[in-house]
Amino acid sequence: MTGRGIRRAEIIAVGTELLGADRTDTNSLFITRELNDLGIEVVAKAVVGDRFDDLAAVFRDAIGRADLVVLTGGLGPTDDDLTRDAVAHVAGRALNEQAPIVERIRARFQSRKLSMPEINRRQALVIDGATLLENRHGTAPGQWFEWNDRLVILLPGPPREMRPMFERVAREMLGPRTAGERVVRRGIRLVGRTESQAEEMLQPLYRVWIARDPAVDATILAASGMLELQLRARTREPGVAETALERAAADVQDVFGPDVISLSAARLEEVIGDLLRTRGRRLGVAESCTGGLVTSRLTDVAGSSDYVDRSIVAYSNRAKVEQLGVPESLIAEHGAVSEPVAAAMAEGIRRVAAADIGLAVTGIAGPGGGTDAKPVGTVAIAVDGPGEKRFVRTFLFPGDRIMVKTFASTTALDRLRRVLLEG
Amino acid sequence: MTGRGIRRAEIIAVGTELLGADRTDTNSLFITRELNDLGIEVVAKAVVGDRFDDLAAVFRDAIGRADLVVLTGGLGPTDDDLTRDAVAHVAGRALNEQAPIVERIRARFQSRKLSMPEINRRQALVIDGATLLENRHGTAPGQWFEWNDRLVILLPGPPREMRPMFERVAREMLGPRTAGERVVRRGIRLVGRTESQAEEMLQPLYRVWIARDPAVDATILAASGMLELQLRARTREPGVAETALERAAADVQDVFGPDVISLSAARLEEVIGDLLRTRGRRLGVAESCTGGLVTSRLTDVAGSSDYVDRSIVAYSNRAKVEQLGVPESLIAEHGAVSEPVAAAMAEGIRRVAAADIGLAVTGIAGPGGGTDAKPVGTVAIAVDGPGEKRFVRTFLFPGDRIMVKTFASTTALDRLRRVLLEG
Repeated sequence: MTGRGIRRAEIIAVGTELLGADRTDTNSLFITRELNDLGIEVVAKAVVGDRFDDLAAVFRDAIGRADLVVLTGGLGPTDDDLTRDAVAHVAGRALNEQAPIVERIRARFQSRKLSMPEINRRQALVIDGATLLENRHGTAPGQWFEWNDRLVILLPGPPREMRPMFERVAREMLGPRTAGERVVRRGIRLVGRTESQAEEMLQPLYRVWIARDPAVDATILAASGMLELQLRARTREPGVAETALERAAADVQDVFGPDVISLSAARLEEVIGDLLRTRGRRLGVAESCTGGLVTSRLTDVAGSSDYVDRSIVAYSNRAKVEQLGVPESLIAEHGAVSEPVAAAMAEGIRRVAAADIGLAVTGIAGPGGGTDAKPVGTVAIAVDGPGEKRFVRTFLFPGDRIMVKTFASTTALDRLRRVLLEG
Repeated sequence: MTGRGIRRAEIIAVGTELLGADRTDTNSLFITRELNDLGIEVVAKAVVGDRFDDLAAVFRDAIGRADLVVLTGGLGPTDDDLTRDAVAHVAGRALNEQAPIVERIRARFQSRKLSMPEINRRQALVIDGATLLENRHGTAPGQWFEWNDRLVILLPGPPREMRPMFERVAREMLGPRTAGERVVRRGIRLVGRTESQAEEMLQPLYRVWIARDPAVDATILAASGMLELQLRARTREPGVAETALERAAADVQDVFGPDVISLSAARLEEVIGDLLRTRGRRLGVAESCTGGLVTSRLTDVAGSSDYVDRSIVAYSNRAKVEQLGVPESLIAEHGAVSEPVAAAMAEGIRRVAAADIGLAVTGIAGPGGGTDAKPVGTVAIAVDGPGEKRFVRTFLFPGDRIMVKTFASTTALDRLRRVLLEG
């Protein structure tokens, strides 16, 4: 390789099925992360179908621009699997059948009491001069070769086969060929701020971080009413990067305070689980508009039966009265979507479940049911306990029914987290 | 254009942010669907960053292969927005500032009481000979031009701006330039079969369909324990395609019977909603391992308060006894994950909610809690009612905690649907 190492990569996903209106190539995301971690930039990526001329043309163009081209897919046994053929053609190299690979594939079939179809011999074709990459999860081996000071890597398409193979080749082959820099990352989860609010609060930090050595940069991703802040530091010494990220994470904690869910990418549900478990608290949940989503998210965490006792989805008013003991008069006076009813639901589920804490959500998910005073998206959230603690507040969330349910469940979980943090 | 019309298209998404490890280009999926509907095939697609040389190279390669190149993104006002410049450079055409566009952008800012930054003049640069595409949702107009018997379309990146613009240009400009064929689609949802089982059952139909005029082809997508079958027919006469799809859908109904959720792409939750509403039935749900997911899915449907009364997530054994009246002895004898307990939960929620039907799920979502006799993934599902109807069965689902929850909720909903279908 050139002295400066590998800097620019292109990724090509091969397969006509990836060119439809319903599927997208996700292998390239995994490969991009691994490459970025090695300090290699992805400058372009492509998807191309199983047609020899198109595949050869796309590969020829990519190898003309990049130091490294990674191809995924098209290594299967059928006539449609043309990656080996097209790459060999463009590189002007022969394809040779390797007997040991045929034997390995045959053994794989025999271990499942099957005989190898003759067509699978195609998977034993190796580009002249290429190094093989063992496939521990399927029949098609990968391969890589150097060509005119550039590198080409061929990987199978199924993620289960591709990922461990690429991790190995990145560590053992690419790592030593890069400029020696590494990118280290750290994920921080935030809640209670919009993307643009967070961006504005972070601007002063960005200016500080960029001037440090090593510099730290950051990107924000928004999802389901939460934000994920991705911090990155690039350096030749990993320990130094970790320290820089630790310091930047502390800056974020200073600026955002309790809006930080976790400095280690733990999810809201997991953070709540840890808080409930370490405090030995059991939880009951009363849901209306979220329809069970709050409890479903809480129970996505393994071991959540340690602290989730039960939940009542009181969708009808009758259910709120019968299951949670909400007074009918309270609903008549304030409406089912109101702070008094939310508070009564929280108190009711705490009592019914004999739990330490009750969490309640009632609101209007839409599209119907909104009024001028209480438009669609109005949601009241209440926490009852532990001890004498009480929280209740009304929120207004944007979007359609599913978005309102999502925002309401995230906010309910976040309010529970804040109450638990207080002790 | 050539007499044969536009057949082969390539799509290029422009933007460095689309080359990261966390985001993927989804504009191309929308564009692909629109193009396919016009009988135009997408032969390759690419993502490229905001760097002039890379963008020019990727565009030059694409236009060398395809009849049509659609670019999205890079039409903003900043120095990073280079799509206009790179495309004009490759095509050897000038860029001209058009005064009426400057005025339109200025007016757009003024309507929001803002003055137009000078940098926004860049958005008024038009490639020599290009036709403008009005942007009703943002400042950057799109543009298209013919070049050497080929077509180039430049669209803004934000989906809200891009989609209506591309719909218009597809209908008004591309439609008349295609070979006159249209692709009509129909989605069918199936449940209770694996992808490979369905594929095997469909093979004889594929052979029949391909021989018909117009031919019908199909693809299967699997998600959350359900299958979506996409049927397509290509013809010059839309009415004929509809009839062919109608006939193919009837074939699918014959082969799959009650495994067909809907012949119109309606979701399982929607189909159940329609069945409950037309029969005037109210539902109560008792969940354990699914933790509220079944009820959350049911209440994703607008108007579900018409038929969902309440749900009890009885996560602890105590909750099963206290809330649903499941006898403690039953749990002691058979275990909480058993058909007798599932049946008692269904009967209990039906009684407690005074509902017409009770639906219950109890199982082991994992990763802990499995035994040799009841491994992780064991789930008992019961339906009680309407009337004297009873259903109970044990299933074994694969995968991690989230997958078991998903499969269990889909199967519970499907079993409810089958009971409702019977009357």
